[in-house]
Amino acid sequence: MPGGLLTDLYELNMAASYMRRSMTGTATFSCVLAADGAQLVDFAFRRTQGIDASLAVARASAIAGFAATSNVAAARRYGLTAAGTMAHSFIEAFEDEQQAFAAFAEDFPGKTTFLVDTYDTGRGVRAAIEVARRLRLPGPVGVRLDSGDLAELARLARTLLDGAGLRDARIFASGGLDEYAIARLAFSGAPIDAYGVGTKMGVSADAPYLDSAYKLVAYAGRPVMKLSAGKTSAPGAKQVYRRPGGDVLALREEPPLPGHEALLLPVMRDGRPLAAPEPLAAIQRRCHADLAALPPAARALHDAEPVPVRISEQLKSLRDRAARDIMRRTADRTAGT
Amino acid sequence: MPGGLLTDLYELNMAASYMRRSMTGTATFSCVLAADGAQLVDFAFRRTQGIDASLAVARASAIAGFAATSNVAAARRYGLTAAGTMAHSFIEAFEDEQQAFAAFAEDFPGKTTFLVDTYDTGRGVRAAIEVARRLRLPGPVGVRLDSGDLAELARLARTLLDGAGLRDARIFASGGLDEYAIARLAFSGAPIDAYGVGTKMGVSADAPYLDSAYKLVAYAGRPVMKLSAGKTSAPGAKQVYRRPGGDVLALREEPPLPGHEALLLPVMRDGRPLAAPEPLAAIQRRCHADLAALPPAARALHDAEPVPVRISEQLKSLRDRAARDIMRRTADRTAGT
Repeated sequence: MPGGLLTDLYELNMAASYMRRSMTGTATFSCVLAADGAQLVDFAFRRTQGIDASLAVARASAIAGFAATSNVAAARRYGLTAAGTMAHSFIEAFEDEQQAFAAFAEDFPGKTTFLVDTYDTGRGVRAAIEVARRLRLPGPVGVRLDSGDLAELARLARTLLDGAGLRDARIFASGGLDEYAIARLAFSGAPIDAYGVGTKMGVSADAPYLDSAYKLVAYAGRPVMKLSAGKTSAPGAKQVYRRPGGDVLALREEPPLPGHEALLLPVMRDGRPLAAPEPLAAIQRRCHADLAALPPAARALHDAEPVPVRISEQLKSLRDRAARDIMRRTADRTAGT
Repeated sequence: MPGGLLTDLYELNMAASYMRRSMTGTATFSCVLAADGAQLVDFAFRRTQGIDASLAVARASAIAGFAATSNVAAARRYGLTAAGTMAHSFIEAFEDEQQAFAAFAEDFPGKTTFLVDTYDTGRGVRAAIEVARRLRLPGPVGVRLDSGDLAELARLARTLLDGAGLRDARIFASGGLDEYAIARLAFSGAPIDAYGVGTKMGVSADAPYLDSAYKLVAYAGRPVMKLSAGKTSAPGAKQVYRRPGGDVLALREEPPLPGHEALLLPVMRDGRPLAAPEPLAAIQRRCHADLAALPPAARALHDAEPVPVRISEQLKSLRDRAARDIMRRTADRTAGT
């Protein structure tokens, strides 16, 4: 167990680092839980911090259960469904909305979602109905609401669409949404079939940085730790054991805990990965199984209850011994000054 | 003035987009204002969102007036001063702090800053004093405080250092600082000579995304705009005129406003930059002159007063005319359904 710098690099200081997000841990999963069965589309690309981040968000949202992404490069790379509607600037480039909608529908007749809020949402929905009728579009149309009171406008749009006989037309909502806004809309019973989520998922707006740090836990076979005020670390290489009731943080040298799953596995050895990358579908399945295994109180969007983490007796005793050793050595030296 | 998509790409929707930061606009300038003359060092690299962001933060902090950066690549690229102290893991890799400090001082005898909070800050300062005396270090030493009550520990460190005759020893503070924490420390009169600022400057934690968007303002010579609820845009290509009393947002086709400076300048034409990049020193001078020209109330860290922005009469009248045109056209069409 003598840990050098590299072998212990994945020892995060578990006490100091946690996300402020709900216990599901990620914005993507929180959105899926909030949407309560409605479809979700990743719209984050234009606001993510760099191209790589946009690919990571598209992949993470697919794992969580998003139906599609507006990021075409990510869709190609990961085999996801690409989806998008139209920009306000597209509408504005035409004399009026009907001309814009008709031009778009002629190019994409099978899967047409009209952006209806550029000028006035009620009139926009009527223009979409008129174009759908006039062009006799083959597939179901959709309308996208991107501003205003989305719940109220969704009800208005549903009434207008149903009144025109377009009962299979879908209502799509977007515009600065996060999991909390989605949960409110879903709870209100607004007739929204799908949500586009962008900025607040792509940049993790409520947790803009992960306050993790490298902590040395052992050096040349000797367990080490920090005692800094408010930043005390725990010595020794760790293992995390999980069972439905909660996790146990133990020393890696302890015998495995019966009935628990060991969460830390070696993934690299001598600079080489130990297994081929998993297919996305396998990751999706495992993530959803993990989520289902969480206690319901830990999955709540508001005031989620943390899953309890117990510290093993051996780790507690090593921590106390190492702290005493450090204080003794430091005291010896300063006594001599 | 007929604007195609690309020529208007720099027309940000000024009404919708602003930063929540103080009116100085950036975390780097806010830190400089807060530090009230103390030195600042950029420590953001380990938390920035990617390598490019770390270089941008180092450059921006140098423009604002930071004395140094811990980012060696940025220091090389932009000709900045590189500075750093030591990691907690370095201290922990030795049997005790004095051994660690002595090993570090032997490698960097001219400019030694000891990290004193790994175990107990008071004992750490005493260990630093002991090593500085024993090795008779040529340059002034420094101590870095990275946890606990920084104001109180700075006073303790100052007392201990002065008592040992090390009156020119510098006290350096770090640990999750932002401009507000720096302002509190500076206002409290804590004897801190320099601050290291990292995460909260490098990721802009209180403004994790810039809610800017592309808005079409003209197409094929016709001024266009959005009327979406809460997201109305202003038509036509703009110019921003500045004078000390405030800014004026005007149409680009209007005659220049006497006594004002036009802020938007062409920087590219036919895909080529129109001027060589400015040297960093010139950018620094202009930024500090701009900052000095702001009204004091706009430079406040808390409850800063926005600089007033006036809309020109011609822009107001174009906006009203364009909105009427759109409503008329939309009404004509839906009247026919």
